[in-house]
Amino acid sequence: MLKDDERMDHIAGTTYQIIQSDNVFTYSIDAILLARFASIPLQKGQILDLCSGNGVVGMTMTERTRAAITLMELQEPLHTMALRSIEENNLCEHVTALCADLKEIKQHFAHGFFDTVTCNPPYFKQSSHEQIKENRTKAVARHELACTLSEVVESAAYVLKHSGKLAIVHRPDRLVDIIEAMKKNKVEPKRIQFCHSKASSHANMLLIEGIKGGKPGLKTEPPLMVYEEDGRYTKEFNEVYFRL
Amino acid sequence: MLKDDERMDHIAGTTYQIIQSDNVFTYSIDAILLARFASIPLQKGQILDLCSGNGVVGMTMTERTRAAITLMELQEPLHTMALRSIEENNLCEHVTALCADLKEIKQHFAHGFFDTVTCNPPYFKQSSHEQIKENRTKAVARHELACTLSEVVESAAYVLKHSGKLAIVHRPDRLVDIIEAMKKNKVEPKRIQFCHSKASSHANMLLIEGIKGGKPGLKTEPPLMVYEEDGRYTKEFNEVYFRL
Repeated sequence: MLKDDERMDHIAGTTYQIIQSDNVFTYSIDAILLARFASIPLQKGQILDLCSGNGVVGMTMTERTRAAITLMELQEPLHTMALRSIEENNLCEHVTALCADLKEIKQHFAHGFFDTVTCNPPYFKQSSHEQIKENRTKAVARHELACTLSEVVESAAYVLKHSGKLAIVHRPDRLVDIIEAMKKNKVEPKRIQFCHSKASSHANMLLIEGIKGGKPGLKTEPPLMVYEEDGRYTKEFNEVYFRL
Repeated sequence: MLKDDERMDHIAGTTYQIIQSDNVFTYSIDAILLARFASIPLQKGQILDLCSGNGVVGMTMTERTRAAITLMELQEPLHTMALRSIEENNLCEHVTALCADLKEIKQHFAHGFFDTVTCNPPYFKQSSHEQIKENRTKAVARHELACTLSEVVESAAYVLKHSGKLAIVHRPDRLVDIIEAMKKNKVEPKRIQFCHSKASSHANMLLIEGIKGGKPGLKTEPPLMVYEEDGRYTKEFNEVYFRL
């Protein structure tokens, strides 16, 4: 089941195990918060997780819904990790995984097929000046080498039904780009939440949800602070992340 | 000095008195927070406050800067209140006030004249379905009857110099409109701060600053909570609002 460099980790706040590797990909807080933030159909429907990596967002969402969840990941090494984790947790009936390029999403899904799309995309813009020192798999997961934010939103908008929801976790410094991409693709931003390491810090994470064809009007949720000033987790973070 | 319905109030955290009237206009927290949030030249330069009302934002900013401050307000009753308050506080050398329509700003100021523009605009979209029950002066101050958000940003962008700053206080549900208007007018959103009544509440106020011709990249400041859960002001609010 496990390759040499892999280990089996626990997904925070769930009963699931997940295969991870420091050489390839390990999930961070962002993925779990996205899985808990997204508005998803609870009993039936179709959910798609783009840039699904080792499957952490999709698997975490299974604890909140009976709807069918599809993972879509470009990189074969991450896709196969996800497949093995899905099997290990007996989630084959609930979660399917596809190894494919989101830029070719029209080849795989019909227009308007999904109720919800989630995505924890690569965060960093590709820069020709910047030397990317990570290995290729890590670099593609973190930098916009294989897809841009604009392509993510365009692909998501295509497969979302009218009134379907797109939830993204990203860095706050890309908020303007996200809003522009959503508006361009007729996905109206409706809910945002900023996460701050401490109450006195600038935000370092942004959760945003838009509705396909929605009416203008944005709600800003209470901010989520990860740490108290003394370094302990806040009560709110423990509740959402560890389900304590 | 005072008309029948007017009273002399204290501006929070300053040594100034300001003329107000419940029949026409009284400042709210928003105006003071804007005056404290905006990045302004400290020693010399030109600052413009649009939709300046009774002058509260402009007068409050004088405590932070020696730069020249110009107020621009469409409504004569508010303009004359501002003029009398400026005189009462001996600020005539520091603050000038113009009664004019911001949609005709090109008649008054040269392109690129100002270092900073601030604005606490009317918050509510004009709606043909909505019966506005206030008197005309109050209605124009609160609803987009005489100018829209888009017109405010367009006028501000015209008079701002390259790298000049535009700071706006508004309701968070208009964030998408603000970002669209700024981007359209080449004002790049650079800093935002959300204010929440309590830490557990949705945001009810948004402070945002853009830079004319700035590079993309947005910082989200630590959020400002007004009240503790027990109803007292927070330490942070006391510091910024009352200067305690």
